[in-house]
Amino acid sequence: MPASPANDPSLHSWIDIRPTDDFPIQNLPFGVIDVPDWGPRLAVAIGGYALDLYACAQLGYFDSVAEDVPELGAALPKVFRRRSLNAFLKLGPVAWRAVRERVSELLRHDNPTLRDNELAVRTCLLRQRDVTMLRPVKPTNVTCFEASRTHALNVAQLLGGVSSLSTHWHHQPLAYSSRASSVVVSDTAIRRPSGLHVPADQTEPVFGPTQQLDVSLETAFVVGQTTAPGTTVPVAQAESHIFGILLCNEWHARDLQRWQALALGSLAQMHVASSVSPWVVTLDALEPFRVAGPAQQPEPLPYLQASGEQHFDLHLELLFKPTGSTVAPLVLSHTSTSTNYWSMAQQLAQLTANGTALEAGDLCASGASSGPTSGALGSLLELTQGGTQPLSLPNDLHLGYLRDGDTVIVRGYAEKNGLRIGLGEVSGTVLPTTT
Amino acid sequence: MPASPANDPSLHSWIDIRPTDDFPIQNLPFGVIDVPDWGPRLAVAIGGYALDLYACAQLGYFDSVAEDVPELGAALPKVFRRRSLNAFLKLGPVAWRAVRERVSELLRHDNPTLRDNELAVRTCLLRQRDVTMLRPVKPTNVTCFEASRTHALNVAQLLGGVSSLSTHWHHQPLAYSSRASSVVVSDTAIRRPSGLHVPADQTEPVFGPTQQLDVSLETAFVVGQTTAPGTTVPVAQAESHIFGILLCNEWHARDLQRWQALALGSLAQMHVASSVSPWVVTLDALEPFRVAGPAQQPEPLPYLQASGEQHFDLHLELLFKPTGSTVAPLVLSHTSTSTNYWSMAQQLAQLTANGTALEAGDLCASGASSGPTSGALGSLLELTQGGTQPLSLPNDLHLGYLRDGDTVIVRGYAEKNGLRIGLGEVSGTVLPTTT
Repeated sequence: MPASPANDPSLHSWIDIRPTDDFPIQNLPFGVIDVPDWGPRLAVAIGGYALDLYACAQLGYFDSVAEDVPELGAALPKVFRRRSLNAFLKLGPVAWRAVRERVSELLRHDNPTLRDNELAVRTCLLRQRDVTMLRPVKPTNVTCFEASRTHALNVAQLLGGVSSLSTHWHHQPLAYSSRASSVVVSDTAIRRPSGLHVPADQTEPVFGPTQQLDVSLETAFVVGQTTAPGTTVPVAQAESHIFGILLCNEWHARDLQRWQALALGSLAQMHVASSVSPWVVTLDALEPFRVAGPAQQPEPLPYLQASGEQHFDLHLELLFKPTGSTVAPLVLSHTSTSTNYWSMAQQLAQLTANGTALEAGDLCASGASSGPTSGALGSLLELTQGGTQPLSLPNDLHLGYLRDGDTVIVRGYAEKNGLRIGLGEVSGTVLPTTT
Repeated sequence: MPASPANDPSLHSWIDIRPTDDFPIQNLPFGVIDVPDWGPRLAVAIGGYALDLYACAQLGYFDSVAEDVPELGAALPKVFRRRSLNAFLKLGPVAWRAVRERVSELLRHDNPTLRDNELAVRTCLLRQRDVTMLRPVKPTNVTCFEASRTHALNVAQLLGGVSSLSTHWHHQPLAYSSRASSVVVSDTAIRRPSGLHVPADQTEPVFGPTQQLDVSLETAFVVGQTTAPGTTVPVAQAESHIFGILLCNEWHARDLQRWQALALGSLAQMHVASSVSPWVVTLDALEPFRVAGPAQQPEPLPYLQASGEQHFDLHLELLFKPTGSTVAPLVLSHTSTSTNYWSMAQQLAQLTANGTALEAGDLCASGASSGPTSGALGSLLELTQGGTQPLSLPNDLHLGYLRDGDTVIVRGYAEKNGLRIGLGEVSGTVLPTTT
């Protein structure tokens, strides 16, 4: 795919953006904002602002694009007046790119069209702190992969009690399905779940609040295109079905998971919630950050073989803020998505290899992107060796698993040659179990 | 819950219904029909007919109910002009019952209101053979339980290679999440999926069409009420969240499943599709068919303890029609939902014990309702001992797993004291893999 003109590193905007901002003009991620009195609408992030796409469309700023892309023209402006990106995604990659490139034009420092229309700027450009971010997509299907070999091996050892990964693991990306209702947007509080588990000093299971509430440092990709049942998407075409990437924090109850995993290997109910970041960074914007992934041995069968750089180098940080803390969050871990063994294209090819249908807005999470070093582990399970070696933090704090009131934040960004494309962040705070 | 007047066994309708019909006036299941030129709408089955609820509402036949149940009144008639039952379900149990009881009144032999209005009858009453049945609900979450102990043990032995069930199995109903996109209505053809499996005479996995396509004889319940995240539904109140029951045939690729199960116990990708019957029989209509379930040892912990008869005795039949056959389908198996170890109420209580949210329209499948005798097994895996002992059928046919062109039908009904409440049927035919 040729580079988009919206990616040009020399572009700059008439909106003031600091070099450390997540959302320069080369990024332009999509999200859904809720504006008091106006209701939900689609938006693009630029610096500390959200550009209201619905308002822009109503003011005619997409008229030229609507002419060039008839399917977009037929859907405007209503497709921007929705509670999720889904309807916009269904318009397809040509429409996604046309909108992103038009937004790029409108925000360029040398384009007076919007810049010099004070009334339009006041209507279309909202401070992010003045709007509520909604969950960006309404997924029909949620798939949780296990893309990192390091993470898979650590889980097998710490929860499964085995010393090495099954050779099966290297033949295909493994995944489980999750609940669409469990996907929540950043800043949604997470209620501590209850379930069956065996307390450390006992042998029989008890029912009660989890004592091992954990997080998972990961990304998820947003499926952009709907496919009919029976359709397989070859690995070489898989990326054209991916709209973009967001940050994901999957909350797990490790003690509940351990108990359930012992019964026929069912891992389904371990899942508590998936917190996602509100802005979806397009695959287009991440084009400059492609890298080769790790060598894959044994070589995958042809249906999973892809040429070229199909991995992306996104830095991920796991941050922690203890209950009551007023200081900056502590960094617990720092990893990169480039450590994932399986690429997103391989995950999507695997998912559709059996002909399962995709829906625009579906989410595919990577699983924790744990890297090979101790500072690059993507879960408390791994960082604390199953809770046996609590982390020593400032102020005499020893962190095993999460306590009520604790806040966990995942941040992510790509950076290269002075260009930073940020994914923003996803945050969640633990609430006590309902009594 | 007091018995509904719509359940009165002495009722009969002005519509001619044979004693073997699935849909007498005491049943009145809900579905979604698509009528040429008119579009989708909600309907109730009566004998061989579908009563168009939208047309009835437009003609004022629900005006009295709308007055009594304001939430229904505010939603009429549009709530009946939908592609799924979801919006109707969200109105809650009072509205469900009020509509079913009003339909019962309208169809009673001694009520002339609709009966004697020829024009209204021609508008509202459609032959089922003249309409297309749509998928009755649009599930947000799909959960596949393993409610039958016999089935769980058989799967553990035939696929897992272990001789007995883990004691963990008896502590809580186990389940995995599935894909909402994979739920299809009866008569949807099922494409043979491909995936990794190890052919019988080889040791290395190959990628290709499954050689062990299987079915599963089960029911699923439809969640009727949405709950907020963090809400637990106690087992004693679980049934009030269940709208009704339909038939379900889960298609599995046993060779793909076996290969995946070996890697960290992930069972997620074994799932091919779930075919569901088009009419949802309300829990109200099934009230006369309550039975005690099997004894549960060890006794479940309090959060799963329920008093009273929480199981239902529904007969289930697995039927088979080989490719090209023009004769009646063959009965492969005959079982009852009363053999399930875990009740629907226990399944729903387990599901929400960790606070996971429910959405109206969610589906919870039971897993195969295999009974203890050889004629009561709910899958080909079990009926053929993992494919090693093909079934001997008429015309020298030996059936291991499914061939392209084969049709599988699941039928179900409850019967007692001359009253038959049918679930209808769900059918599916195997298509060859796309090449």
